[in-house]
Amino acid sequence: METKIEAIIEDLSLVRKTNPLVHNITNYVVMNNTANALLAIGASPIMAHAEEEVEEMVSICSSLVINIGTLSEPWTKAMVKAIIKAKNIQKPIILDPVGAGASTLRNQTIKRLLDAASPSVIRGNASEIISTLSSSGKTKGVDSIHSSESAIESGKKLSEIIQGTVVISGATDYIIQRDQTRKVSNGDPMMTKVTGLGCTATALIGAFAAVQKDTLRASLSAMAVMGIAGEMAKMKAEGPGSFQMHFLDALYQIGADEIRTRFKE
Amino acid sequence: METKIEAIIEDLSLVRKTNPLVHNITNYVVMNNTANALLAIGASPIMAHAEEEVEEMVSICSSLVINIGTLSEPWTKAMVKAIIKAKNIQKPIILDPVGAGASTLRNQTIKRLLDAASPSVIRGNASEIISTLSSSGKTKGVDSIHSSESAIESGKKLSEIIQGTVVISGATDYIIQRDQTRKVSNGDPMMTKVTGLGCTATALIGAFAAVQKDTLRASLSAMAVMGIAGEMAKMKAEGPGSFQMHFLDALYQIGADEIRTRFKE
Amino acid sequence: METKIEAIIEDLSLVRKTNPLVHNITNYVVMNNTANALLAIGASPIMAHAEEEVEEMVSICSSLVINIGTLSEPWTKAMVKAIIKAKNIQKPIILDPVGAGASTLRNQTIKRLLDAASPSVIRGNASEIISTLSSSGKTKGVDSIHSSESAIESGKKLSEIIQGTVVISGATDYIIQRDQTRKVSNGDPMMTKVTGLGCTATALIGAFAAVQKDTLRASLSAMAVMGIAGEMAKMKAEGPGSFQMHFLDALYQIGADEIRTRFKE
Repeated sequence: METKIEAIIEDLSLVRKTNPLVHNITNYVVMNNTANALLAIGASPIMAHAEEEVEEMVSICSSLVINIGTLSEPWTKAMVKAIIKAKNIQKPIILDPVGAGASTLRNQTIKRLLDAASPSVIRGNASEIISTLSSSGKTKGVDSIHSSESAIESGKKLSEIIQGTVVISGATDYIIQRDQTRKVSNGDPMMTKVTGLGCTATALIGAFAAVQKDTLRASLSAMAVMGIAGEMAKMKAEGPGSFQMHFLDALYQIGADEIRTRFKE
Repeated sequence: METKIEAIIEDLSLVRKTNPLVHNITNYVVMNNTANALLAIGASPIMAHAEEEVEEMVSICSSLVINIGTLSEPWTKAMVKAIIKAKNIQKPIILDPVGAGASTLRNQTIKRLLDAASPSVIRGNASEIISTLSSSGKTKGVDSIHSSESAIESGKKLSEIIQGTVVISGATDYIIQRDQTRKVSNGDPMMTKVTGLGCTATALIGAFAAVQKDTLRASLSAMAVMGIAGEMAKMKAEGPGSFQMHFLDALYQIGADEIRTRFKE
Repeated sequence: METKIEAIIEDLSLVRKTNPLVHNITNYVVMNNTANALLAIGASPIMAHAEEEVEEMVSICSSLVINIGTLSEPWTKAMVKAIIKAKNIQKPIILDPVGAGASTLRNQTIKRLLDAASPSVIRGNASEIISTLSSSGKTKGVDSIHSSESAIESGKKLSEIIQGTVVISGATDYIIQRDQTRKVSNGDPMMTKVTGLGCTATALIGAFAAVQKDTLRASLSAMAVMGIAGEMAKMKAEGPGSFQMHFLDALYQIGADEIRTRFKE
């Protein structure tokens, strides 16, 4: 516990010292919030999606965040190109399979993205992780009851397939790397009443993975910071509108004290 | 008056109990706010616009909201497809003809959308309702003086044509279904200083129409909730920035008390 | 100094009296904030990017703001069309070359836009102004050390080339028109922690240029209002989340008193 806490504090400090440039190809709904969350935590966002320039953008950035929230073919093409480039130059790739399982297009797109190159980290809710495993084409059948437990099993298999980290968001977050599992129990139910906080979590993983090569550790740090900032915001919020504002302030304010006092496995 | 108030309270309660999934094909400017407003009131937003998946998305949602704010051909194609699907499986369709009359493209697009299938509800300001009637191609000539009164006449005709409900937003909102007209006089002028609150109103109608089949009643409930939340926000706001935040909080907080105290016809 | 202060006050008053319609073809990340900033200051935003309608939109607006933040070919085509139309009917054109120098596509696009017609005002940070000068194709070599001083020289040359105004944003803003240079030293470092405040500055120049033909003066007024509103916001903010909210409130509240007390050259 102590070691984990000090690791989170160290990683946060690294993000703030190095201000990593994070390239986001993400959805329209959350772009503004994602950019603001990255700035608040001390990173710098780039948002660019034209096929003609994504490779150059990947080159100048320290990590790549791919989010399929508002999918369409020209964006998918750019995502594939960016992923291949990032893999080639060994930049961490973080995938957020928003709405996995909700449509054939989403499932096919996830397969295309996974086939392009294995992401370093995949983050989603239980249902998205289960559907992503199914879309990977390397397993058959999906438990229709999307309990946390069945998501953990899927998360482990998915982690094996991508040889990377899988994060299952929820009341308790599970951060899985093959046979290792970490937990973060911070956060607040109000976070489900603000759009795109899952997407923000994915972007923060991008910021932490940009400075911390151990993606299991980077993901744990990012999820802990998310959850603790959520608790800090909740103390001042009167509803989801003010929660969203206080959450950005909390990402800016959070320090060693809050992490030491609040981190819960 | 009493009956209307109790209907609004009942409909709001239904939205919160059933958490309807609302599919939005809307404009870039307001996506974040719209999603947050739907979450704050107790509904769940889906935002997806790829032609390849809109039919599947319509299938899993309880209503469809179409908003032409930042129009382009690929989006229009997806809108047409989604509308036809929604009509076929009898899901309510809510149309927001943003900027109707401002360009030939907008007028033509509105005609295409109306030709695809009649929406259950159209919501716009006076000028947009008049222009939409004109674009429907089923009437000639538009009064160039866009007074509320001339919009009411247009609203009635438009309601006849679509065999549905027409909502004219303004200082007083008129909710029209053929020969029936309801009024909501709640709200605050500050609402015109925040972008996309008209779009939010349309999305809330989508949430209410998802749980209340009587679209005249659902539209009245949604407009009343909008206006009362606006009044609640105004009490705490120091300008349009804080207004926007308090407005989302108010959508989350509003209950029977506020509706009973504040509803004005 | 006195004369400048009175000019700023007069221009702000003009914006609020005439509520100019400002046409924005801008990036996805900032659309909502840009629209809200324009509303807060007293202008009205239009956001439309379809090639089929941009000319009509330019016709009904008082100025055109072009921002290449989230670039793609269909948008560039619409930008070129809108710029040519605005030039033909003598509406002011404000260009924000976001990320100039970061990719070949950006540099080529800037050249295409400058070739379509010279903007009335270009606003960017030091690095963007230097890269824009380079992209104009009318100079060779770019100083790789992007100090304010080298940006001023580039700004002067760029101003000569476009026969217009160049604004270099930074801790001190430089507003340049050929051999004339003005300075604004207002603002707060927190402004760099909120996404898109540079884009907001460009949009505000659009609002001021819509009512004030002297673009050197209009740009100075806009940058002064930006910086002073930033200082007002900082006094109440606890982080970048609340800063953003208070900033919009400040744009709404700012008046002659704040400008007289705070304006710094």
